[in-house]
Amino acid sequence: MFEFSHRVQFYETDLMGIVHHSNYLRLFEEARVAWGVQAGLLEWSKPETASAFAVLSTQVRHLKPSRFGDVLKIQVQARLSGVRIEFAYKMWNDQELISEARTEHVHLGPDLKVLRPSAKMKQQMEKEQWNETWLSNL
Amino acid sequence: MFEFSHRVQFYETDLMGIVHHSNYLRLFEEARVAWGVQAGLLEWSKPETASAFAVLSTQVRHLKPSRFGDVLKIQVQARLSGVRIEFAYKMWNDQELISEARTEHVHLGPDLKVLRPSAKMKQQMEKEQWNETWLSNL
Amino acid sequence: MFEFSHRVQFYETDLMGIVHHSNYLRLFEEARVAWGVQAGLLEWSKPETASAFAVLSTQVRHLKPSRFGDVLKIQVQARLSGVRIEFAYKMWNDQELISEARTEHVHLGPDLKVLRPSAKMKQQMEKEQWNETWLSNL
Amino acid sequence: MFEFSHRVQFYETDLMGIVHHSNYLRLFEEARVAWGVQAGLLEWSKPETASAFAVLSTQVRHLKPSRFGDVLKIQVQARLSGVRIEFAYKMWNDQELISEARTEHVHLGPDLKVLRPSAKMKQQMEKEQWNETWLSNL
Repeated sequence: MFEFSHRVQFYETDLMGIVHHSNYLRLFEEARVAWGVQAGLLEWSKPETASAFAVLSTQVRHLKPSRFGDVLKIQVQARLSGVRIEFAYKMWNDQELISEARTEHVHLGPDLKVLRPSAKMKQQMEKEQWNETWLSNL
Repeated sequence: MFEFSHRVQFYETDLMGIVHHSNYLRLFEEARVAWGVQAGLLEWSKPETASAFAVLSTQVRHLKPSRFGDVLKIQVQARLSGVRIEFAYKMWNDQELISEARTEHVHLGPDLKVLRPSAKMKQQMEKEQWNETWLSNL
Repeated sequence: MFEFSHRVQFYETDLMGIVHHSNYLRLFEEARVAWGVQAGLLEWSKPETASAFAVLSTQVRHLKPSRFGDVLKIQVQARLSGVRIEFAYKMWNDQELISEARTEHVHLGPDLKVLRPSAKMKQQMEKEQWNETWLSNL
Repeated sequence: MFEFSHRVQFYETDLMGIVHHSNYLRLFEEARVAWGVQAGLLEWSKPETASAFAVLSTQVRHLKPSRFGDVLKIQVQARLSGVRIEFAYKMWNDQELISEARTEHVHLGPDLKVLRPSAKMKQQMEKEQWNETWLSNL
């Protein structure tokens, strides 16, 4: 399974002394983009390959807070469901599960019309692991 | 119903030319805090009244994008469910519904233990409107 | 002189319990854009009028911190200096001067070439107040 | 000289398609904190070692924009000047100098009084490189 890690920065915290909840969507995005690059679906040097995907929905469950300096590990699962691209995420802090999330996306054309997933996307998704019961809190 | 408005700033956009999805959680927070202040549950001059609430979960559905300069209107509903404080949100851009969301929170004591809602919170929540079928996309 | 106000939001704070210093550049941008709109140089409904200006430099001096709920007042002065558009800012929190700043910008064409200020910009700038000794800490 | 690298994320861009200028202060903070950790002055697991430093001033000069996916290299120089801790930064994108910056900080005690630099800080700073003419655009 794809795994990504992120060190919590000072500017990601809030006055509670923990990572602000909005930043979790940024960390899941970091993980999702890194997944896309390693899968050959996105290219770092081509921003348009990343901006072609719109976010339909997000869902995040917080089990424990995280703090400055923590090294968070994010695991990613992905699958196609019609035109929708679905991701599931688990976030770990030092062996402890601290968050679970789901996001849904669609591929958009230049006129912002929804496109069907490309052949390359389909091919990649067939190789991806997806376990319906993987998330236990969402 | 409580209504809040926010003008989209330049720094809230991303390279797609639209508001980045993580910022929606910040806008819903702005609306939730403003709701708490008008309800007498939070005080602007007492940050500790705001930081006493932890975010348990968030859920956002995006129907349309929003752009620099848009004036977004956010409506808020709230209720208690045991120790959980639940919020539902609708976001409008010029009469058009562009997003719906839910968030769940709990009141935390200084030792990060979950507290039961205060008498004041309960009293306020009895006055709040909550319509189970208000959100149509979540 | 143009004056703008901003209520500090929860998500703008960091674990020191104060507004993170990077957010000051966002607040000065809010003030600058609002100045541009009232001067007729930018339009809220035309993002391209705002994205046509590149930031050359920024300079911020912090005198006092600001906190959740504070209502910050930002005063703006502007002038042209060749192709550069210069802004000076004072930020007040309840009568107390808490920050001063300067930023420099240029107008960019579609090919990212620097453009000369438009006639409209020149005309507006002649009406603007600029006092060389207005900032006392920068 | 201490060197730090950062991959530009999607959420760091704005509608101009480039990294928003406020995020440069976040990247310089990332570099400064990493410098502090390797110098033994900060600990990742002790947020209070990082939050004990207040930002007095920032100054950033932008020479070229940066984009999604770019790997930015940040070089850091540091020195003491009385109670002030001064940093200078150069940011490189693929061999090209794209930004220079300076920031000033002070050590604060629990009552927010300015503290004199610790013996450890002084000792470390004597080992640091500082070249008055290193920055060529600030």
